[in-house]
Amino acid sequence: MKIKKPYLLFLGDAADQLAAKTAIGIRDWRPDDCVGQFRMDDCKADAGLEDMTIKQAVDAGAKTLVAGVANRGGIISDAWVAVLKDALNAGLDLAAGLHNKLADVPALQRTAKRKKRQIFDVRHPSETYPVANGEKRSGKRLLPVGTDCSCGKMYTALAIEKEMLEREMKATFRATGQTGILITGEGVSVDAVVADFISGAIETISPANDPDHWDIIEGQGSLFHASYAGVSTGLLHGAQPDALVLCHEPTRTHMRGLPHYPLPGLEDCMEANLQVASLTNPDVKFVGVSVDTSRLGEDEAFAFLAQISTRLGLPAVDPVRTGVDVIVDGLI
Amino acid sequence: MKIKKPYLLFLGDAADQLAAKTAIGIRDWRPDDCVGQFRMDDCKADAGLEDMTIKQAVDAGAKTLVAGVANRGGIISDAWVAVLKDALNAGLDLAAGLHNKLADVPALQRTAKRKKRQIFDVRHPSETYPVANGEKRSGKRLLPVGTDCSCGKMYTALAIEKEMLEREMKATFRATGQTGILITGEGVSVDAVVADFISGAIETISPANDPDHWDIIEGQGSLFHASYAGVSTGLLHGAQPDALVLCHEPTRTHMRGLPHYPLPGLEDCMEANLQVASLTNPDVKFVGVSVDTSRLGEDEAFAFLAQISTRLGLPAVDPVRTGVDVIVDGLI
Repeated sequence: MKIKKPYLLFLGDAADQLAAKTAIGIRDWRPDDCVGQFRMDDCKADAGLEDMTIKQAVDAGAKTLVAGVANRGGIISDAWVAVLKDALNAGLDLAAGLHNKLADVPALQRTAKRKKRQIFDVRHPSETYPVANGEKRSGKRLLPVGTDCSCGKMYTALAIEKEMLEREMKATFRATGQTGILITGEGVSVDAVVADFISGAIETISPANDPDHWDIIEGQGSLFHASYAGVSTGLLHGAQPDALVLCHEPTRTHMRGLPHYPLPGLEDCMEANLQVASLTNPDVKFVGVSVDTSRLGEDEAFAFLAQISTRLGLPAVDPVRTGVDVIVDGLI
Repeated sequence: MKIKKPYLLFLGDAADQLAAKTAIGIRDWRPDDCVGQFRMDDCKADAGLEDMTIKQAVDAGAKTLVAGVANRGGIISDAWVAVLKDALNAGLDLAAGLHNKLADVPALQRTAKRKKRQIFDVRHPSETYPVANGEKRSGKRLLPVGTDCSCGKMYTALAIEKEMLEREMKATFRATGQTGILITGEGVSVDAVVADFISGAIETISPANDPDHWDIIEGQGSLFHASYAGVSTGLLHGAQPDALVLCHEPTRTHMRGLPHYPLPGLEDCMEANLQVASLTNPDVKFVGVSVDTSRLGEDEAFAFLAQISTRLGLPAVDPVRTGVDVIVDGLI
């Protein structure tokens, strides 16, 4: 799977800015891959790109319309279908990371077939993957792991890739979730593959590479999340990480979606991740901590980072507030 | 999913006894659920049941023909299809645990539809499962875990269920793989569910029960298997086991299918399983060790069991050679 770029970002009828966070993420991390945005009349979000019609986007070189927005009520509305059909008719591919598939909408299916266009429903893997073989691959790999779900793993990975590329290091972000896939145009939605192939899928998307090349692999879930730890375990084994970054959101009172489950201690979380990861890479180690301090004040945030850094003996950053350069410094 | 019993066991054109091991397993563990066997002319296996025609089986009360045999070359042959179609026409459902689906064979699909019969391809989950909620369920649960794949976990679980039922304890074997499902008529092929739902599937097949009821849940894979540990992790979390039994095959020189991976030490394997399992059940403990000693001589086998038992401070059994009663003794 390789989604063709550049993109026209479809913001649809987003109810607010948050509903279009995928589009905003694509614009933030791959601005050069976006020719503009398409907003319907009642759209309340803005990715800060030029508003374009489908025709203007095609003329500007767009290859794919990316639905970077949540669909209201989980429904793919007739209003959406009308726009998406126009896009197909104008020669664009479609890509989306929704729970339901654009390719299941008969009108889009028919139009795509007639116009020989592709529809990428990236939350639904269409490829098959081999069973993991556990064999050591050349090249370096970094993986952010979390105390919980949704605590900044993708953001941390993208920030580290960006910092490395700015230093002219060889680095590639490897997407394992739908937003990451839409940002890069490829990857695997690892929580949607068949359970036997979790590790094999990760081995596939992070193949052998130059000895000085870094794959920055997007982490998922947490070994301490009672719903999703199987995914996190298989991802750790398939990634064979040399370097782990611990991601944490310090104001969370319980594991996401599981009110009866407290968060693990940072040391316990690190120890468990090292133990699991060491199966496929005995040399694995932690190289930093990445904290989402957005819910803390400025002084509190810096105090927390300093305290964590001293306690764990690792650089501690917030990718947004401080950047990740001290982590990358340690990898050179 | 609930496969109707009793069964007619289809041994097909089995090349040897091993090819029909699923049928033999069903006969061993659920003899009262089998009315007879159907063998084609060139069948080299024998489940020791009465040979029957389809009509005789139907007259004897059979509800489902179970293909308890590997299909040669992974092909569903015309000769098979002819028999299976006859079975559908005679009013039987079909069940199989093959990699390819009987339901994908057009002639069988059409006949099943016309005769309103069901086809259960148990390796391919047709149900959807919720995300695990991690909430404590009433009742007791035992899970065999392995140093490796294929080291006696299903056999151990079935032997413990049998021993408990003979003592009039409340116990139910919960199948998580295709052979186990065909034996019991229900369960989930957990390595074939979508990764996000591994733990949720196990929560579903092992619901809340009487406080003195034991679910004996079939284990899968190993935390130390670089291909499948994600499945084992999710299974452990969903099972919330009170009791673990360590399964081991002592002559194995490397992890199954992974020549570069040695087996873990027994103590390391126990510690890792306790750590993972304690997330959803902090009171988890090991209650025994189950060793497949079939490749050892009699003296060697008993010496090994005695040594392991002393070393680990747990009852050590071979379900075939010694039975599992000392493990069940410890659970009362």
